[in-house]
Amino acid sequence: MRHKIYYELIKECKHTKARAGILHTPHGDIETPIFMPVGTNATVKAVLPEALKEMGAQIILSNTYHLHLRPGEDIIRQAGGLHKFMNWDRPILTDSGGFQVFSLAKINNITFEGVEFQSHIDGSRRFITPEKAIDIQNALGSDIIMAFDECVPYGKDFDYTENSLKTTVEWAKRCAAHHKNENQALFGIIQGGMFEKLRKISVEETCAIDLPGYSIGGLSVGEPKELMFDLVHYTAALMPKDKPRYLMGVGSFDALVEGIAGGIDMFDCVMQTRMGRNGTALTRSGRINLKNSRYKNDFTPLDDTCDCYVCKNYTKAYLRHLVIANEILAGMLISWHNIHATIRFVKDIRDAILEENFHVIKRNFENVWYNDK
Amino acid sequence: MRHKIYYELIKECKHTKARAGILHTPHGDIETPIFMPVGTNATVKAVLPEALKEMGAQIILSNTYHLHLRPGEDIIRQAGGLHKFMNWDRPILTDSGGFQVFSLAKINNITFEGVEFQSHIDGSRRFITPEKAIDIQNALGSDIIMAFDECVPYGKDFDYTENSLKTTVEWAKRCAAHHKNENQALFGIIQGGMFEKLRKISVEETCAIDLPGYSIGGLSVGEPKELMFDLVHYTAALMPKDKPRYLMGVGSFDALVEGIAGGIDMFDCVMQTRMGRNGTALTRSGRINLKNSRYKNDFTPLDDTCDCYVCKNYTKAYLRHLVIANEILAGMLISWHNIHATIRFVKDIRDAILEENFHVIKRNFENVWYNDK
Repeated sequence: MRHKIYYELIKECKHTKARAGILHTPHGDIETPIFMPVGTNATVKAVLPEALKEMGAQIILSNTYHLHLRPGEDIIRQAGGLHKFMNWDRPILTDSGGFQVFSLAKINNITFEGVEFQSHIDGSRRFITPEKAIDIQNALGSDIIMAFDECVPYGKDFDYTENSLKTTVEWAKRCAAHHKNENQALFGIIQGGMFEKLRKISVEETCAIDLPGYSIGGLSVGEPKELMFDLVHYTAALMPKDKPRYLMGVGSFDALVEGIAGGIDMFDCVMQTRMGRNGTALTRSGRINLKNSRYKNDFTPLDDTCDCYVCKNYTKAYLRHLVIANEILAGMLISWHNIHATIRFVKDIRDAILEENFHVIKRNFENVWYNDK
Repeated sequence: MRHKIYYELIKECKHTKARAGILHTPHGDIETPIFMPVGTNATVKAVLPEALKEMGAQIILSNTYHLHLRPGEDIIRQAGGLHKFMNWDRPILTDSGGFQVFSLAKINNITFEGVEFQSHIDGSRRFITPEKAIDIQNALGSDIIMAFDECVPYGKDFDYTENSLKTTVEWAKRCAAHHKNENQALFGIIQGGMFEKLRKISVEETCAIDLPGYSIGGLSVGEPKELMFDLVHYTAALMPKDKPRYLMGVGSFDALVEGIAGGIDMFDCVMQTRMGRNGTALTRSGRINLKNSRYKNDFTPLDDTCDCYVCKNYTKAYLRHLVIANEILAGMLISWHNIHATIRFVKDIRDAILEENFHVIKRNFENVWYNDK
């Protein structure tokens, strides 16, 4: 079936699995590979929507779990949907809440039916089922919605992971059966922990559902980066070529290069804004911790190769002053730079794929470039 | 003497002491009456300079005391001055630090020579003299600088206030003698506590120094609002007509109307940004505390008569969500609205003065308008 939201493959790298494409959605086209800034609570922390557009953000992510708990999907439905509520007219992807239920809430019970948990905000008892996760996302009106899944913690054994995986696949089927809105694309989530065998089963069974896109979940949960990279390459290679592939929760520069080389199209990460609020700037030549006193009278920009608003107008000395004085503007400006730098990094990679020199750029990155681990 | 920074009187109200004018400075003209947003630490909290311009901010205030302690005036001098450091190319007024030394620091000793105090940041011992306050402000390069003064706490008796006043006048003379930069206008500060007799002496002795502008300090320090209004009217009427008159630390809507009616040209206040960060919006028909659950599903703007970016793009329900979720964007957006609304309020008053109907507007305000006390 041809979905309303569909992926168009434009170019493949001859030396890696990297690819460039376009993801068509009702709120506009998304050029992939793409980095998606995270707006957990219907706001990308400390950044205005207009600024996100200036940075080149084509799609942002928001969190079903958080919005369900606060303000509740009914408020957002009444507001005319999440786009209108938060003043963002480009595409939005919402995570299903699976990851947050398992990482933020106190779990009371996981059954085949769903998950009973306590809100991390007020301790209230909640029950989410795959159908409920779809209902919430339908109310939010995001362009891409995710199937409800269990994100298996790092260190779980084969048997636990296999059982969890079976549940996640069944949940994905129930999500697909329950989801009716053709303006929203439901993506399935590949799980399987650190086990190639289970990743393979997960791909086979999840992709058999015929959804408009698939993500790799359950990585970047504490495992060594090399293991993550291996599993990304292994898993992505099994996934259908005609559908977008989304690596969830990953967005450091090295992981972006590796993920794209493995055939990933979409990424999201909170690192850009979290580090922004903590006074750490991301650049292609390394991270800058502005608390370091060496920046006290450094009147150069964060990155003199960066064309973002922050690098054009502010010095490290000023940003350091804001960080030390605990000023909100510090988080606003450094988050801005970090998101811009990441979007631009991925955009440059996309251009390189189109120009058939991604493999060269990849080698250069690996040589000159600060190790993000 | 004709100063480089000078006031041009354009229009006087026939029914009140209100007046419209232009304050000419090297960084541009300022249309008075004017509200000046406060950027204590070289940043108007949670607001970008470009946003301030969109709001119509013509001049901002910054604090000598804070910048002296952190990052230190040498850093700012090396950066090329405060304008360049903070990316603001319009006029800046710096407070002398007198008010902050007396309100934030632990005072060890006040002598005729100066004030010995402990930094509220790290407890380090500091000594500020009038000459030092000028040196710091010269290093900062602000367009309007303030004489070093003692801001007398509310409740001090006549004798204390009279003695303090004598010191403040002598300090103003020393500031004037020490200040050499003709691109920076030194304003004197009228003190005298709650005593008309002392206010009169302060005006006479301070204005005898022939400075390019004068402010009224030592009000809005805890006294009843009626007393403040009476003292503003009394004091402003004694001040020279050909110089700008600045009422320090005052910016609520009712006080703006009263101050302008008394002949004040310039105002500053931290209320707009402080309330913005606390989830309270200012409108001409009252304050809106967004924590109130009645706004949960109120999908109207903060003020449907307001043309600011926030009122054009966001609802009370969304802003309330941000406040409840403790999101930085809440402070960013509500501060934006509050500053815009205040600047616009004063601009409308200026237009009314020019159109000779300020007295009508003033009466209407007093009737319909929420009491800001």
